[in-house]
Amino acid sequence: MKLTKEQSQEIKDQQNQENITKRVTAHDLEKILYEAIPILDHGFIRVVDYMGNDTSIVQSARVSYGKGTKKVSTDAGLIKYLMRHWHSTPFEMCEIKYHVKLPIFIARQWIRHRTANVNEYSARYSILDKEFYLPSKENLAAQSQSNRQGRGDTLKGEQAEEVLNLLKNDAERTYQNYETMLNERYDGNIIDDNKTGLARELARMNLTLNTYTQWYWKTDLLNLMNFLRLRADHHAQYEIRAYADAMLDTVKKWVPITYEAFMDYRVGGTEVSAKGKIVLQKLIKGEKITIEESGLSKREWNELMIAFNLKDKLI
Amino acid sequence: MKLTKEQSQEIKDQQNQENITKRVTAHDLEKILYEAIPILDHGFIRVVDYMGNDTSIVQSARVSYGKGTKKVSTDAGLIKYLMRHWHSTPFEMCEIKYHVKLPIFIARQWIRHRTANVNEYSARYSILDKEFYLPSKENLAAQSQSNRQGRGDTLKGEQAEEVLNLLKNDAERTYQNYETMLNERYDGNIIDDNKTGLARELARMNLTLNTYTQWYWKTDLLNLMNFLRLRADHHAQYEIRAYADAMLDTVKKWVPITYEAFMDYRVGGTEVSAKGKIVLQKLIKGEKITIEESGLSKREWNELMIAFNLKDKLI
Amino acid sequence: MKLTKEQSQEIKDQQNQENITKRVTAHDLEKILYEAIPILDHGFIRVVDYMGNDTSIVQSARVSYGKGTKKVSTDAGLIKYLMRHWHSTPFEMCEIKYHVKLPIFIARQWIRHRTANVNEYSARYSILDKEFYLPSKENLAAQSQSNRQGRGDTLKGEQAEEVLNLLKNDAERTYQNYETMLNERYDGNIIDDNKTGLARELARMNLTLNTYTQWYWKTDLLNLMNFLRLRADHHAQYEIRAYADAMLDTVKKWVPITYEAFMDYRVGGTEVSAKGKIVLQKLIKGEKITIEESGLSKREWNELMIAFNLKDKLI
Amino acid sequence: MKLTKEQSQEIKDQQNQENITKRVTAHDLEKILYEAIPILDHGFIRVVDYMGNDTSIVQSARVSYGKGTKKVSTDAGLIKYLMRHWHSTPFEMCEIKYHVKLPIFIARQWIRHRTANVNEYSARYSILDKEFYLPSKENLAAQSQSNRQGRGDTLKGEQAEEVLNLLKNDAERTYQNYETMLNERYDGNIIDDNKTGLARELARMNLTLNTYTQWYWKTDLLNLMNFLRLRADHHAQYEIRAYADAMLDTVKKWVPITYEAFMDYRVGGTEVSAKGKIVLQKLIKGEKITIEESGLSKREWNELMIAFNLKDKLI
Repeated sequence: MKLTKEQSQEIKDQQNQENITKRVTAHDLEKILYEAIPILDHGFIRVVDYMGNDTSIVQSARVSYGKGTKKVSTDAGLIKYLMRHWHSTPFEMCEIKYHVKLPIFIARQWIRHRTANVNEYSARYSILDKEFYLPSKENLAAQSQSNRQGRGDTLKGEQAEEVLNLLKNDAERTYQNYETMLNERYDGNIIDDNKTGLARELARMNLTLNTYTQWYWKTDLLNLMNFLRLRADHHAQYEIRAYADAMLDTVKKWVPITYEAFMDYRVGGTEVSAKGKIVLQKLIKGEKITIEESGLSKREWNELMIAFNLKDKLI
Repeated sequence: MKLTKEQSQEIKDQQNQENITKRVTAHDLEKILYEAIPILDHGFIRVVDYMGNDTSIVQSARVSYGKGTKKVSTDAGLIKYLMRHWHSTPFEMCEIKYHVKLPIFIARQWIRHRTANVNEYSARYSILDKEFYLPSKENLAAQSQSNRQGRGDTLKGEQAEEVLNLLKNDAERTYQNYETMLNERYDGNIIDDNKTGLARELARMNLTLNTYTQWYWKTDLLNLMNFLRLRADHHAQYEIRAYADAMLDTVKKWVPITYEAFMDYRVGGTEVSAKGKIVLQKLIKGEKITIEESGLSKREWNELMIAFNLKDKLI
Repeated sequence: MKLTKEQSQEIKDQQNQENITKRVTAHDLEKILYEAIPILDHGFIRVVDYMGNDTSIVQSARVSYGKGTKKVSTDAGLIKYLMRHWHSTPFEMCEIKYHVKLPIFIARQWIRHRTANVNEYSARYSILDKEFYLPSKENLAAQSQSNRQGRGDTLKGEQAEEVLNLLKNDAERTYQNYETMLNERYDGNIIDDNKTGLARELARMNLTLNTYTQWYWKTDLLNLMNFLRLRADHHAQYEIRAYADAMLDTVKKWVPITYEAFMDYRVGGTEVSAKGKIVLQKLIKGEKITIEESGLSKREWNELMIAFNLKDKLI
Repeated sequence: MKLTKEQSQEIKDQQNQENITKRVTAHDLEKILYEAIPILDHGFIRVVDYMGNDTSIVQSARVSYGKGTKKVSTDAGLIKYLMRHWHSTPFEMCEIKYHVKLPIFIARQWIRHRTANVNEYSARYSILDKEFYLPSKENLAAQSQSNRQGRGDTLKGEQAEEVLNLLKNDAERTYQNYETMLNERYDGNIIDDNKTGLARELARMNLTLNTYTQWYWKTDLLNLMNFLRLRADHHAQYEIRAYADAMLDTVKKWVPITYEAFMDYRVGGTEVSAKGKIVLQKLIKGEKITIEESGLSKREWNELMIAFNLKDKLI
């Protein structure tokens, strides 16, 4: 990620603001406000605004006239209770806004989370930056043999080299041809004064899906946690996980009590089915139970044992 | 509206906060933050938090690194353009949170606006305040004869008196019986030590629909404008309009440029149908057009003429 | 629940339809289509339309050109897989519409589920039916002492009688005064020809919260399951659970494979936190673990033990 | 658009269904159910399911026990009234589901309409079809000089040829390299038995944005009309308008009365601002008004005159 001088200056100008407000603030989040946190090779996330902190959750759960806080320990107890029992509306009372730069194929996964507000940089209106994602070698994984939508081992030597070259050359050539069709370079310079450029809304179709785009993305804390629960999970594609991990860190700075409850009950927790409950219960009581008796499929049985770190019970 | 000493103090404590933030602020809105603005006889609205101001709309429309502002005149031009062409997402980038006290029958209209976050005071958990809405005499209107869901003239003398008495007595008695069933007064005092109270979640069913409830209500600027456009309209029921009017005023303090564009293009504007356009066009050209030729119903014709203040054309 | 002759006839007329369609149908659901299933003393639910069946979930998960079905066993396996891994969008591809008659205080809980389409009978426009909910004696519960939003034991003898009388008398009197203010009876008869009625939008505020209202309520299968998971749960208020239970039965008739997966993974399942997982793991391995070591609160510990039916471990 | 034999057969099999249902049906829509209607060079839309028809809107607006229909003329009057006064919920009571094949850069515009259910063909899981959009020559437009997000004149001769060649070659080469990286052809044949393929979730990033994808897309009638109002408009990009136009035609077959009201009040209608209303009013009364007095910008003035086809008033 590199920012132009102008962009860096704009960020600095915002960070130098010192406004007085009667609103509650989030001390640790203020410290990194507006900062571009690098993700992948050219991407970033920046927290550009937020509303509320841990006390806002308590306050609205109690519909209170004041801060809604008694003492930190009581607040923490209430927040944990709300999280444990899947109360949703109090967590919707906090809001956050990010500026994100990300490859288009990741943007397409991301946008599936509908309960959010988005303004994307318009390639009908403007020329996209000349930046595209190329995986680092350790992220260049083969197709998984066991999981049709997963990754297997890392590609080796020559083949890795070949793949990277293909990706790089194709992205560069399609971008160059994008400029040719536009009759304009990414920096705004006209290529041939005697030609007209193709409409931007058409020319963009020549770009590859690893081209970077950017957007403003705003959501409430509940929906952010829904997003992070899925996207910071090890089943998620590495590239979106990289964003989710950095965002998890901003949540920790913003609402530390909620963050802790979220890690305990959601991220670190697991769901057990009705049939699975009986299996665990029998195991605890020292009774025997076979997979046939359990009614679980082999896959389900193993997922259950892995969730509880019972490797000797794998089948 | 009367607040308890404790509530007034809690509000004051919040108003006395002076926090430093790097976020943008809304100068005029800060002045009334947390303040309980009285509505109807016992209701209020209070702005308890907000995110963004006019510059945030410009910033996200441009997906900019900095404030997104060039000069105020440019910003105003862009905001007007966005409003005129029904751009929606930039206005979603501002968020506001209200604490509202309102009669239940109005809460039931209000909640129909789904794109908002709500925490309502729980009558399963707590005892509702002993407050109910009684209309002032000038708002005690007869059923409209022409509009099945509207109001006609104000009720007169004796009948007005009678209606007010019925409303008052029924609300008071049902509340008293609510306390009897709970075996507990609104102030928490137990009535009869030898009795158990009925579950709160059941006892509440005895209350009348003019009983006051309260909630935290949070939404983005776009959806707030959708709400206000419908609820500050003269077709809306007076009691919800009273809330909408006060909220319109908070919008003016929060995002003055957007407010002006909203008043011009939405609140003060009108929709003209394809058929209506031809009628107006002919009138402008001085050509004749009858209602039969127009294809409009009598009702539509008159709605069109009223919208353009052409009273001599009413049929 | 009693229907007027006209209403019964309208329902019969709809049930007698025999239309040919190329759409998929749900055999068992067709049998009860339009039928008013009684709930509580005067309420009902009726399935009035639906879209899709179990095969639609499979079809859209595969984005297929045809029915998306291979064999029933494969379909069932896929649906279970989707449910287990919290896939959401395929379940959104089925839609259902209910006509529901319910007490207003329950309607107020219900409407909090926002991802649904609703048309409620308008008391601004029409006069509400003269029907209100009175609990049966076995549902007349005292306030729970341990759970601030729950019920305890059933009220006994005299006190139960007293509560029922209060509820009945208050509902009847407030309804009668509603008619007086409207100057019109529920059956449309004018009371006093020399008087004007109060506007309907105002008169309704005199009704108690146990008055019945009705609405059309439409949602997709995913959001219906979210609703049922919360409202068919034993923590839900009995009165809304009565509706949820009847709706669960319609789900069984509509999408039997999904229903089974839902019962196993959601309704019958449980969430275990990161800390809870370690506790269970130790118990399975026969290792000792105290509540102090676990980091769980007493309440959490007991909730965990109850979920796994380990009553001897309760503290 | 070409379908494989298997796909055509699957479509035919569905069209040959003759199921009996008590649900209402839409006669003209049934005729084209499942049919792939070609759009652009390789795309299509297919209606794969629907729920309700015009009578459903009336029925839910009246919350009726029966069909809610009196006579067609009354129904039409009510539907027009609801449309004119922006009633929204009755139109949400009808639902439709499409299977759509479309270029990725159009899918990215389309997905911005959030109130819809979507299942997209997964390129993490499967290999995308070898099909990409190439504009026909008459749609190969230059960048507009006046409107930064619009099209100007059609590109001429040699330059058009050049652009088409670039688009074609780049799409073909990136697709070929996609296959090389996957070590698998689009038809499932392995390229080199001694190599492992790159993970699908990675390889897809090499494709250009005009590659076709496909999805199931389901929405209610209100949100469909919101989509069509924006996307069938002449400001919309031609490529998405091609889809919207075909969908408009399915709406006409599905809910003909609603379609007519929609065309009159929304598609053919226009918004006039408060300031614009005064201008039109003066013109009708034959009074003079200058642009300065009007308070309109030049752009607004001209937009108003164009909307009412008053070309002699353009400035």
